[in-house]
Amino acid sequence: MQVRVGILGVSGYGGGEVLRICATHPTFKVVYVAGEGSAGQKLGDRFPGIGALADLQIEKFDPTALPPLDLLFASLPSGQSKEPLAAVSPAVKIIDIGGDHRFVEGWTYGLADVWPDRIKGKTRIANPGCYPAAAITALAPLLTEELIDPETIIIDAKSGVSGAGRGGAGGSFGFAEVNEDVSAYALFKHAHLPEITTALSQIAGRPAGITFTPHLIPMTRGILATCYAKGSATTAQCLAAAKSFYANRPFVRITETSPHTKWATGSNLVFLSYAADPSRNQIIALAAIDNLGKGAAGQAIQNANLITNQQETAGLEGTPLWP
Amino acid sequence: MQVRVGILGVSGYGGGEVLRICATHPTFKVVYVAGEGSAGQKLGDRFPGIGALADLQIEKFDPTALPPLDLLFASLPSGQSKEPLAAVSPAVKIIDIGGDHRFVEGWTYGLADVWPDRIKGKTRIANPGCYPAAAITALAPLLTEELIDPETIIIDAKSGVSGAGRGGAGGSFGFAEVNEDVSAYALFKHAHLPEITTALSQIAGRPAGITFTPHLIPMTRGILATCYAKGSATTAQCLAAAKSFYANRPFVRITETSPHTKWATGSNLVFLSYAADPSRNQIIALAAIDNLGKGAAGQAIQNANLITNQQETAGLEGTPLWP
Amino acid sequence: MQVRVGILGVSGYGGGEVLRICATHPTFKVVYVAGEGSAGQKLGDRFPGIGALADLQIEKFDPTALPPLDLLFASLPSGQSKEPLAAVSPAVKIIDIGGDHRFVEGWTYGLADVWPDRIKGKTRIANPGCYPAAAITALAPLLTEELIDPETIIIDAKSGVSGAGRGGAGGSFGFAEVNEDVSAYALFKHAHLPEITTALSQIAGRPAGITFTPHLIPMTRGILATCYAKGSATTAQCLAAAKSFYANRPFVRITETSPHTKWATGSNLVFLSYAADPSRNQIIALAAIDNLGKGAAGQAIQNANLITNQQETAGLEGTPLWP
Amino acid sequence: MQVRVGILGVSGYGGGEVLRICATHPTFKVVYVAGEGSAGQKLGDRFPGIGALADLQIEKFDPTALPPLDLLFASLPSGQSKEPLAAVSPAVKIIDIGGDHRFVEGWTYGLADVWPDRIKGKTRIANPGCYPAAAITALAPLLTEELIDPETIIIDAKSGVSGAGRGGAGGSFGFAEVNEDVSAYALFKHAHLPEITTALSQIAGRPAGITFTPHLIPMTRGILATCYAKGSATTAQCLAAAKSFYANRPFVRITETSPHTKWATGSNLVFLSYAADPSRNQIIALAAIDNLGKGAAGQAIQNANLITNQQETAGLEGTPLWP
Repeated sequence: MQVRVGILGVSGYGGGEVLRICATHPTFKVVYVAGEGSAGQKLGDRFPGIGALADLQIEKFDPTALPPLDLLFASLPSGQSKEPLAAVSPAVKIIDIGGDHRFVEGWTYGLADVWPDRIKGKTRIANPGCYPAAAITALAPLLTEELIDPETIIIDAKSGVSGAGRGGAGGSFGFAEVNEDVSAYALFKHAHLPEITTALSQIAGRPAGITFTPHLIPMTRGILATCYAKGSATTAQCLAAAKSFYANRPFVRITETSPHTKWATGSNLVFLSYAADPSRNQIIALAAIDNLGKGAAGQAIQNANLITNQQETAGLEGTPLWP
Repeated sequence: MQVRVGILGVSGYGGGEVLRICATHPTFKVVYVAGEGSAGQKLGDRFPGIGALADLQIEKFDPTALPPLDLLFASLPSGQSKEPLAAVSPAVKIIDIGGDHRFVEGWTYGLADVWPDRIKGKTRIANPGCYPAAAITALAPLLTEELIDPETIIIDAKSGVSGAGRGGAGGSFGFAEVNEDVSAYALFKHAHLPEITTALSQIAGRPAGITFTPHLIPMTRGILATCYAKGSATTAQCLAAAKSFYANRPFVRITETSPHTKWATGSNLVFLSYAADPSRNQIIALAAIDNLGKGAAGQAIQNANLITNQQETAGLEGTPLWP
Repeated sequence: MQVRVGILGVSGYGGGEVLRICATHPTFKVVYVAGEGSAGQKLGDRFPGIGALADLQIEKFDPTALPPLDLLFASLPSGQSKEPLAAVSPAVKIIDIGGDHRFVEGWTYGLADVWPDRIKGKTRIANPGCYPAAAITALAPLLTEELIDPETIIIDAKSGVSGAGRGGAGGSFGFAEVNEDVSAYALFKHAHLPEITTALSQIAGRPAGITFTPHLIPMTRGILATCYAKGSATTAQCLAAAKSFYANRPFVRITETSPHTKWATGSNLVFLSYAADPSRNQIIALAAIDNLGKGAAGQAIQNANLITNQQETAGLEGTPLWP
Repeated sequence: MQVRVGILGVSGYGGGEVLRICATHPTFKVVYVAGEGSAGQKLGDRFPGIGALADLQIEKFDPTALPPLDLLFASLPSGQSKEPLAAVSPAVKIIDIGGDHRFVEGWTYGLADVWPDRIKGKTRIANPGCYPAAAITALAPLLTEELIDPETIIIDAKSGVSGAGRGGAGGSFGFAEVNEDVSAYALFKHAHLPEITTALSQIAGRPAGITFTPHLIPMTRGILATCYAKGSATTAQCLAAAKSFYANRPFVRITETSPHTKWATGSNLVFLSYAADPSRNQIIALAAIDNLGKGAAGQAIQNANLITNQQETAGLEGTPLWP
């Protein structure tokens, strides 16, 4: 049975990736798209390769004048979701890709690989941030098995610049300045830190203490999270914990070699690996994702599949692009 | 009905892209893969995101010891295809992605968007080179409508470095030297020049004279062919000729704005545009493709669909990756 | 004797490169810098590695309130130079890096490698555009020796995105969209076309007919101009003409192999090469430069050296950065 | 007085950068260059922009047949320096850029910004590795002032791929695979770990415990070291410690904002910054360098200046390339 889908923020990077996946999804049918600057254009004007949906017009979002929808993806700028999404009919299931509803009452945090059972049956899903998606997935097995001390976690994350959104191009994300450059930013104060702390504390069952340092590197897509924590487990024990925790989870791959972000390009996969030096009581957990896939649109589709009773992998079976 | 597929050269860029597309193709089932350096490994060792095919073992190619196959994709180094492919049973249909069989007797040149009818019913297809795929597709409508003089053609092409193949990394294609660099190469003597000349002469019905200058630019995927020829037509006439020529061809998009290679990433699409300055008697034809898509594996799958009586677009419906 | 230097537009890419070169120039002493958005900041705030000039304050440009200066470099947005520069005292020599004064009465076109004698002794120099600097330098010897027909010239140029200026980042030059992309733009109508046509016509002594197609490729610095023209000369004759034309010119290098833009990074060098196919009456001239070096600031310093009676190479002796 | 200079490994990235700096050094005169694969060629064949040194022939290195030299830079592959350099006359001062003589008897570890007084007067200098140069420089002030616990140090470093050397292109450093990718490597076992541990233990005056995780990111030049350690100091105290420690050191810049590697491109500068969260007892130290500058050739020239009684900054005054 077909699911009638709407996408808010379709001309941004996250919304565009939702559109790309929906375009070949077996049951999701995009019937409504909205965008701020692109309203009035047709989808084909913004996405020259979009195919069958090329003639769909991009609307100006008005929550009170939506066509009949079963499912709405919202990929709106930070701080602009709460009011308009509150006005959407409860009959429409919503996946909010933005950050406004994470750990907010009435919304379920959609970390689909870790908590699929929390998500099924819900109608309001707050999709995790891109950095949290990587880091929490890497650390969850170690915290669950109590292999690491939750108060000693350091997350050093490296991201491609599409994570800053399309508006990011207007500021300091011009090619000439991003190319051949790497820098850290928002030390001790990135907006994703409370989200990571809350999620990891829930998993650990006690307060987690997190140092989180994001970095921008000269690539378009991809996040690598290199996570450090204190613990005496061996590499083999960490790998075993992850394999057990994610047994039968379709998008999680545990590898013995250090994962590359390029392994995940264009997909909803997350690659995890672990290394330990018990002599130093030090454990490293690595997660590689596509920040627009598992870090945004891929996870959103996975959540949407769960709440609309589709196969969890529907529309997400594609092999990553390589090279 | 399922088609049993084999892939030679699976660990190269072209062979890997065939594998990627086949992995989600509705009727092609990969049952045999061969590679030179990777023989003995499993597919999952080379392609960490490959999914269901991860356990298929990579074989050392022996044309006399193939399993039962319906279709064989060959992506072998230049000069190494003729003898082994001659030893393959006539019952196995072959798409040769390499250059050894282009305009060779017994083989059909597989320029699928231009000559689909030549391809249907055949069993030995020589897939076009990446540069020819772009340039010929752009120029065919103009030559057919006699809007340009076939003796005045200049093709200035810009390619990402994956076109050099994976072996290319061993030479002068290291990141540190390719990044922030552009150069021309093989002036007046690139291996694709005879192929382009032959095809364009066939289309024109008389000898074409071609200047072809390939360039390497710092990107992984993509070819832009900027083609110049003498002719008095207007931009509108050129666009109309292309729209007419490619009416109902599923992978060709005619645009009024100059096409970007990024529009095609990961797809079998080709974007064409035209501009003319009748006061100078000058016409410019532009083609943008993914060199591993329309320029190699995408075209190969399209050809395979045609000769195995599938939908021409089977497995190729995906929207390009963006950004 | 020291030359007191001012720089307008110092926080842009062109102005910043002038500053970088001046910082180690033996006789140029920067005493005044102005910038639009950066006025009020210190140079060290914009250029963390600038060294001794770090404490110089960036001013808001007022042509009527300049400190005592011998030389002024103007790198202002297009269309904003004419009036303010007209108000600058005639005692101050000016190099306008922008496009407003090219082939304008009272200003000398500063193509320093081709016309050094026109430049010496002048006080108002219009620095050539980046594309013209490359293309004209490549074609001048062939036109002078009448080896090519000036009515048949096609210039296919590939540029890094810093050529669009720092403001360019605000539009469509964000990393995520420039990376892995190439496209042509401004077909038959780029602002540099009249400039190229005028200069080449002067060199040829009769009207030149030029097709000029610029392309943006994913790199920060560099322009490669691939120039096509009709002529029956051999490769050796073209190379000899260039070697003769540029004998003893310090920044021009003639090479037998195709030049790479990376050879010129950070320098004022221009690399030229030639190839011919007399059987097709076709000649190709190639020029590789750093668009911010020979294409802007390097050429500007060279012009400034010529009009202030310095060594032509002063401040420009550095070896290009590689890799 | 001129210093007669030889360079071993001149066609590699490190040796080439030494050559580039020497070419404009006021007193160093390159009279001898050697290379493995490039022996027999002239410098101009390898470095098209090299200028006056273009005709110098590249020799095959024979330590027993050197011309008269005052100074020798050795940039040889790992493991190939010990025997040949032992055969060089004691009258020739040597800077070994490779790793064979670090913390080896008879050789002085050349961390010039931290230990300049150890270096002056010596004749055998082991140049630090690129990662150590960044990390030790960032941490030295904090250890000296006892602001951090030396047993709790984590160094998460991100490097451009030129650090792998030119031979690196033969393996997995091809553009198509490095572009759009990031990965960690050599976890807990990189060759630079003992070097870092020894140096930091010396500075701390007691054993340091180091976790070191290098990463490759898609850029040519640059290293950012993000260093974590336990300590209760504030950001202001860390910055003050660094400013005091590096007072009057010409190549060290302390900044309040997070440093960018692009700030250092082509220079010998190191940019340091610090951030602290006393509530978590966590300190972060950041260092940004050009891995071929401060991480190799720049540091080597600085060391050479110190042991040949030149100005410490001779040849190294250039402003970084930007953008």
